[in-house]
Amino acid sequence: MSNERVIYLPLGGAGEIGMNAYVYGYGKPGKEKLILVDLGVTFPDMDGSPGVDLILPDISWLEKRKNDLEAIFVTHAHEDHVGAIAHYYAQLGAPVYARAFTANIARRKMGEHGHPEKAVTVVQPWPETVKAGPFSVGFAPISHSIPESSALVIDTPKGRLLHTGDFKIDTNPGVGEPFDHAMFEEIGKDGVLALMCDSTNVFSQHEGRSESTVSPEIEKLVAGAKGMVAATTFASNVARVLTLAEAGERAGRSICLMGRAMRRMIEASIETGVLTHFPTTVSPEDAKNLPRENVMLIVTGSQGERRAASAQLANGKYQGIKLVEGDLFLFSSKTIPGNERGVIRIMNQFSEIGVDVVDDDGGRYHVSGHANRPDIEVMHDLVKPQMVVPMHGEHRHLREHVKICNAKGIRGVLAVNGMLMNLTAKTPTVDEYVETGRTYLDGSVRVGALDGVVRDRIRMALNGHVTVNVILDEDNESLGDPWCEIKGLAETGTSNAPLIDVLEEDLAQFINRAGKKVLADEDKLDDELRRITRQSAMTEVGKKPEVTVIVSRLT
Amino acid sequence: MSNERVIYLPLGGAGEIGMNAYVYGYGKPGKEKLILVDLGVTFPDMDGSPGVDLILPDISWLEKRKNDLEAIFVTHAHEDHVGAIAHYYAQLGAPVYARAFTANIARRKMGEHGHPEKAVTVVQPWPETVKAGPFSVGFAPISHSIPESSALVIDTPKGRLLHTGDFKIDTNPGVGEPFDHAMFEEIGKDGVLALMCDSTNVFSQHEGRSESTVSPEIEKLVAGAKGMVAATTFASNVARVLTLAEAGERAGRSICLMGRAMRRMIEASIETGVLTHFPTTVSPEDAKNLPRENVMLIVTGSQGERRAASAQLANGKYQGIKLVEGDLFLFSSKTIPGNERGVIRIMNQFSEIGVDVVDDDGGRYHVSGHANRPDIEVMHDLVKPQMVVPMHGEHRHLREHVKICNAKGIRGVLAVNGMLMNLTAKTPTVDEYVETGRTYLDGSVRVGALDGVVRDRIRMALNGHVTVNVILDEDNESLGDPWCEIKGLAETGTSNAPLIDVLEEDLAQFINRAGKKVLADEDKLDDELRRITRQSAMTEVGKKPEVTVIVSRLT
Repeated sequence: MSNERVIYLPLGGAGEIGMNAYVYGYGKPGKEKLILVDLGVTFPDMDGSPGVDLILPDISWLEKRKNDLEAIFVTHAHEDHVGAIAHYYAQLGAPVYARAFTANIARRKMGEHGHPEKAVTVVQPWPETVKAGPFSVGFAPISHSIPESSALVIDTPKGRLLHTGDFKIDTNPGVGEPFDHAMFEEIGKDGVLALMCDSTNVFSQHEGRSESTVSPEIEKLVAGAKGMVAATTFASNVARVLTLAEAGERAGRSICLMGRAMRRMIEASIETGVLTHFPTTVSPEDAKNLPRENVMLIVTGSQGERRAASAQLANGKYQGIKLVEGDLFLFSSKTIPGNERGVIRIMNQFSEIGVDVVDDDGGRYHVSGHANRPDIEVMHDLVKPQMVVPMHGEHRHLREHVKICNAKGIRGVLAVNGMLMNLTAKTPTVDEYVETGRTYLDGSVRVGALDGVVRDRIRMALNGHVTVNVILDEDNESLGDPWCEIKGLAETGTSNAPLIDVLEEDLAQFINRAGKKVLADEDKLDDELRRITRQSAMTEVGKKPEVTVIVSRLT
Repeated sequence: MSNERVIYLPLGGAGEIGMNAYVYGYGKPGKEKLILVDLGVTFPDMDGSPGVDLILPDISWLEKRKNDLEAIFVTHAHEDHVGAIAHYYAQLGAPVYARAFTANIARRKMGEHGHPEKAVTVVQPWPETVKAGPFSVGFAPISHSIPESSALVIDTPKGRLLHTGDFKIDTNPGVGEPFDHAMFEEIGKDGVLALMCDSTNVFSQHEGRSESTVSPEIEKLVAGAKGMVAATTFASNVARVLTLAEAGERAGRSICLMGRAMRRMIEASIETGVLTHFPTTVSPEDAKNLPRENVMLIVTGSQGERRAASAQLANGKYQGIKLVEGDLFLFSSKTIPGNERGVIRIMNQFSEIGVDVVDDDGGRYHVSGHANRPDIEVMHDLVKPQMVVPMHGEHRHLREHVKICNAKGIRGVLAVNGMLMNLTAKTPTVDEYVETGRTYLDGSVRVGALDGVVRDRIRMALNGHVTVNVILDEDNESLGDPWCEIKGLAETGTSNAPLIDVLEEDLAQFINRAGKKVLADEDKLDDELRRITRQSAMTEVGKKPEVTVIVSRLT
């Protein structure tokens, strides 16, 4: 009997929302041929990853198996699905497949990293398929908040898998293909071994709303505006950008796109035929010279990102354009948890200028791109899989999704990052725990999340830093007193003397009393100087700083 | 004609939610007698104030006028209203007035700081009043989410002011006095010069809900639970804590309070007669030995605070108690914007253990303590003031509140922190802009928010730190090569050599080529070493670190 198996191994995206990377394999244990679905990034924050530019999944396991990797398939062009493609191209070297719009974005990324654009192959939608080793993969169009999102139909010698990617059920999405119930039913007809299913909105109990429901509301709002109108949304939500632009056009406004991502996404949509019409746009220079009531800006920065167009406008002027009292700013977007502070800062800055800010207002000007619980269940029911493996969710989302399955009598499998699942076992089991994690793009280099680099930064941010300098001569006698420099600590402590003076005095006392043996022992001396500095600072200012000790020995 | 005036000067709380501190004055310009309403704190975050323990309002202006300060009145015992009382007692020295429950909490704080408890005087509610210089101040009971909240009726020789404090309109608040429409109508009957009015929930369009509406839902939830139940809410929301405890008691559960604030608030409530009954509680040691289905924990940490009981339980064990699969954890609270990440982390940790987490679920298990827009308008209509001065809100809340007033034909006055308003001018005007801001409690010392201490910490967190050490002899000849230490930077850069080696080599080259003049010039040498280090690091790892230069000159 053959012992080939089908495996599923999330390296990112299962147990978190972000940096999706799902490995599928087929073959004898340890010798499976592999494909990778999506290779995305996630974004750093000051709490956990200060100074980091981008967070990538740790793909060490895949690098070791790169000779088995047949191909990478990208479901859609959101950063959490495509963002790491170019960063890891050199390591993995596998061909990348995507539909035209996604490929357009992926190729731009390849180009920016100096990789060949032809590394990305454009694929036609299901029922066309791509062969990759033992796999045959088809891109089944599915509605989401970006054009040409696809569920992947992954056929293996032991059965069919369906990987939904991100999706919602929208039969009138504005741009791109409507959700096709019949197609998914057909895909499931002959049996599906496992459905890997989006879990993002599993806690939303009501049926999801169509993208088309926001158009009339946006149109009404823009039509009623007196001054300049600016609106922000995710640039990749091309349907929304079109809705906004059309609302502006109907209200007699010229459309001005601001922010690099905004222009790029519309460009890509037009190049790939996703958008066949879009209102004529004007440059910021031209917009500046039009009457305010004839201008509509569509800008990046819906999440309050500091360098994006919305933040710049809130700060004052951006590309020569300034919002003033009586203008309107619309967040046609939802704030992702964790980004609240940045968004609120912008709202208050606009309020100070006198700009009226309108937010999504409980769904009036925004709808989610993910399936709510009832829609997730529709997907289960259309495909009728032998098991559901929830993905694209934090642990609580995956667990809830499993509970829903179990309540319906479908087998739900909870698999988080690093769990290598044997899907063809009688009961799907974790066959191996693979080490996964995060890799930081930090400036121009990559560092492991657990390397301690970022930990040291966090410690300096919390505790401040002291440099201690001691010079010893060839006889281990101190030349002069120890010398300190502080950064990120109060200058004066409880004794009302400068903190530096107190530290230097305490260190001098130690050095003067220390025996030759201690002074000669590099590690011991280092430890003692650090200990005294921390203790002395604690007494003075109530903080134990990070300490760099430099002992120079003249020989 | 007398030129005495009534002034209003927010030092905190107007233009932000937090650290409330409102000055009122009466007298000739610059010689007014003053009172202060509330003296609260706000909480630091990693984005803007890493390592800071607490944020206090900058009260420099008030310190200069301390001889004019007659008294401090505290509306209620929330930290953003009472939290800075003890920190600033030594500077201000004014008597503090509060109702019994608030005074109980304030006295505990005084005691912890070694100040006399008698600095806080207990006041009976309106119609009793306290004389303070030219002012007469009464505490009018008003419903909120903590016992004994009060609006302040502030009578001046030129008319009555009403300062609402935090409030909602709740005629059935569970604990404490219901909202008394007739009383506020009566207070306003003879004319009110200005209504200073809570603005927190001005964007909520629907009428607010009573605290009593959550009881049946909580009771149902707890009654249906199988394992141990734990619930968190703000400890100061005594009505909610009682509701939770009673729901537990009715379900046959022993109540265990966990977290210092939780025990302290219940203690204070019983001591002051605010709570006349509360279910018997058991200690964690006893709770541990009871069957799980007979225990209900009520715990601190509804905002995901790292050291609070909820976070500790999510981490594993707390005071001997461990939640396990099948237990229930209820957030009977709303997450304050900015705290999402912490709360979500706890939810996922519980999910990993198998604990079912229930959150406020759109208001089922939580109601806000602040008046929504229709309720704010009820307050306007009851009091019928000559003007409304919105407070307790970010700029956007204050502005919206002013817009509502203006639309109704009431004069709305937008005054943010630092605007000294003359309320008795024909048109209320800003007579002076006073410097305000934030003071950080950092370890055991206070530092100004703009001192640069925290800025340096943020820079180290974003860019890492390098120490550069050079030793020069009496002839300004370098003894050995420069020496570096790095913290918070990648060890290896693009050239694949250790970053330290690259930095030291570049610095050595510079030192060897530098002329005597540069080496002799302390500032110049320092600047150059810093510049080269930053540039070299930028080339190697794409980051410009913070640099501490230590040049030791042997003489």
